[in-house]
Amino acid sequence: MEVSFSCRFDGMEGSEIRKIFALLSDPDMISFAGGNPSPLSFPSKQIGEIAADLIQNQAATVFQYGNTQGTDALLHTVREMNAGIMRPDDEAIILTGSSQGIEMTARTLIDRGDTVLVESPSFLGALQTFKLAQADIKSVRLEEDGPDLNELEDKIKKYAPKFFYIIPTFQNPTGITAGAEKRRKIYEMCAGHGVIILEDDPYAELRYEGEAVAPIKSYDTSGTVIKLMSFSKTISPGLRVGAAIADKKIIAKFNLTKQGLDVHTSNLSQYIVSEYVRRGYYAPHVKEICSLYRAQRDEMERAAAEHFPEGVSMLHPAGGLFMWGFLPEGICAKDLFAECVRRKVAFVPGAPFYAEDPRRNAFRLNFSMPSRKNIQKGIRIMGDTLKGEFLK
Amino acid sequence: MEVSFSCRFDGMEGSEIRKIFALLSDPDMISFAGGNPSPLSFPSKQIGEIAADLIQNQAATVFQYGNTQGTDALLHTVREMNAGIMRPDDEAIILTGSSQGIEMTARTLIDRGDTVLVESPSFLGALQTFKLAQADIKSVRLEEDGPDLNELEDKIKKYAPKFFYIIPTFQNPTGITAGAEKRRKIYEMCAGHGVIILEDDPYAELRYEGEAVAPIKSYDTSGTVIKLMSFSKTISPGLRVGAAIADKKIIAKFNLTKQGLDVHTSNLSQYIVSEYVRRGYYAPHVKEICSLYRAQRDEMERAAAEHFPEGVSMLHPAGGLFMWGFLPEGICAKDLFAECVRRKVAFVPGAPFYAEDPRRNAFRLNFSMPSRKNIQKGIRIMGDTLKGEFLK
Repeated sequence: MEVSFSCRFDGMEGSEIRKIFALLSDPDMISFAGGNPSPLSFPSKQIGEIAADLIQNQAATVFQYGNTQGTDALLHTVREMNAGIMRPDDEAIILTGSSQGIEMTARTLIDRGDTVLVESPSFLGALQTFKLAQADIKSVRLEEDGPDLNELEDKIKKYAPKFFYIIPTFQNPTGITAGAEKRRKIYEMCAGHGVIILEDDPYAELRYEGEAVAPIKSYDTSGTVIKLMSFSKTISPGLRVGAAIADKKIIAKFNLTKQGLDVHTSNLSQYIVSEYVRRGYYAPHVKEICSLYRAQRDEMERAAAEHFPEGVSMLHPAGGLFMWGFLPEGICAKDLFAECVRRKVAFVPGAPFYAEDPRRNAFRLNFSMPSRKNIQKGIRIMGDTLKGEFLK
Repeated sequence: MEVSFSCRFDGMEGSEIRKIFALLSDPDMISFAGGNPSPLSFPSKQIGEIAADLIQNQAATVFQYGNTQGTDALLHTVREMNAGIMRPDDEAIILTGSSQGIEMTARTLIDRGDTVLVESPSFLGALQTFKLAQADIKSVRLEEDGPDLNELEDKIKKYAPKFFYIIPTFQNPTGITAGAEKRRKIYEMCAGHGVIILEDDPYAELRYEGEAVAPIKSYDTSGTVIKLMSFSKTISPGLRVGAAIADKKIIAKFNLTKQGLDVHTSNLSQYIVSEYVRRGYYAPHVKEICSLYRAQRDEMERAAAEHFPEGVSMLHPAGGLFMWGFLPEGICAKDLFAECVRRKVAFVPGAPFYAEDPRRNAFRLNFSMPSRKNIQKGIRIMGDTLKGEFLK
């Protein structure tokens, strides 16, 4: 039968990135492509203990239907973790991964043709979600310390966007962190113009140097900021647990939307996460992950300095999972990708991360998933390929 | 800040049903209101063993990101369970609860103003999802053996719906099962007019008497039928695992949509379910649940025969979780509900289940969740309330 699909799919080609990820099932591939935690980072022993306790002692709750908004225990945990930044009128909701909050924000605020502002470049999954929501996507250039405020103001005035989507800390894909002063100004600018801020902050706890910067939500006195948080990078992405904090009027709409999306997030996953935090495992575990990833980031920077030819520039990320770089002008990262994959090294070409005006020489490397040995080897192969095939 | 929400929320009042469910946290309430499995039905011992094994031996997969479409193991299980009815061009996708498939079908096929046909009455969650998708909802009267085929054909011709949403087996809320011949004709009628069938079949395995009826999907030679299945009623709703089977063109769109909804379903939940089936626990467990629920249904029928006054008519369900009834004409089930709640018995008034022309004397009783003792007591209280307050 010929199926007439919703027009939301018009112009959605099969994503190049998905084709890249299909390659990664090759076990011999050194992958800098994903955004996966290290397999060494999963706290299986503690989760095993917790799961056994839960299944033995709380089966009637864990296995039963739960509330759409989340289990009381995890909502309590999330409120405690965000005690300093929640307004009296703010509420929390548990999500099946924090990116569900991007979907919900789009569904809650966007009608076809409304404008969404994003950073340039930005998270691919968010761009796809906004496209499927039939939004008009406009972007604001990222500087070293966050979005260009002049451009942000211009575009707010010009396009009257419904919301501004920002990953302020160790941004995906660039690793850039917006400074405190910029965060305050972004808040004031958006609040002043009635533009919601969707603050997606899944990497904030993975800081390897320097002082933490308060989230944009900490400036919020007006209910302007929806903040997303994730347990995917700090406990496990496979459990699919995140949360959103926002004004209760917005959370009410999220609740209604989530009933259709999945009724509620897996209770077993929710209870594992709240127990993990309650038992005091969380903070020491995050500290351990940070020292693991710091070493892997440093290894990648050392290897890049040694093996990448002159003219390749890499941004230094103070945390997170990603290192962003630019090939010498005129070299297309997709072409380098094709050559590298043949040599069993994968990364992500940067162009798809731009909603407008893609930079074809940009590329993203992930340093959390590969081992230090593979980081060394993969970067050497990338450097050799660049020198041998592109800079002859 | 004044938030301007998407117009999809226009005219969505706070659901009366949600207010009902808020009452159910009272531990003294005897509830016939939900659709919950019995707390006695959860196979905690086997799931405990499986979870321990998985966490000990497969942490690097279970806790890591997975494929959007589902784990290989569970996709394999789902394909095996549906081997007899899948077309060569059909594929499967794992869902975070089968109702996620309702959402995905709406998102994949519906543009604002498109028509969806539903049974009258139908599942509340589906009606809400279709409203939020801004569909125009039209309904087809249910007869004792399924939808009225003349009305179905008339409405297909009149409204050219994008799809027909049907729960063919032990329907929610009525408990009605569509007969084999009717299923074949529904398929032919829809396929002939280019109308997708969304076959939601979460209760099919909970049969307490009579012979199983083949799903509508078994007639599908053209890719017309999307079939949803659930592990919520047979293993655990708290794990949130279901699946859809449909033509691969449709599954491709589901995959794209699911990336935004939740990236993938909890790996831990998926692996628990596939292992549970692989270890041979599933079929005997379903048999056990059936004998538990059969006894509870019988108890409810006995109690209703004893305590309900003349003029109350109850449908006899051959399976599933629900018993549907009608109060004598002129008595509003909402009024009875208010009186019963004061006496600590809850059920669901039937009017909200109708997309059009609500029958205000209809009501739904759940018999899977309450104990036999509470079934006796609750039905007696309902009957006494009816006789004492409404039929004086």
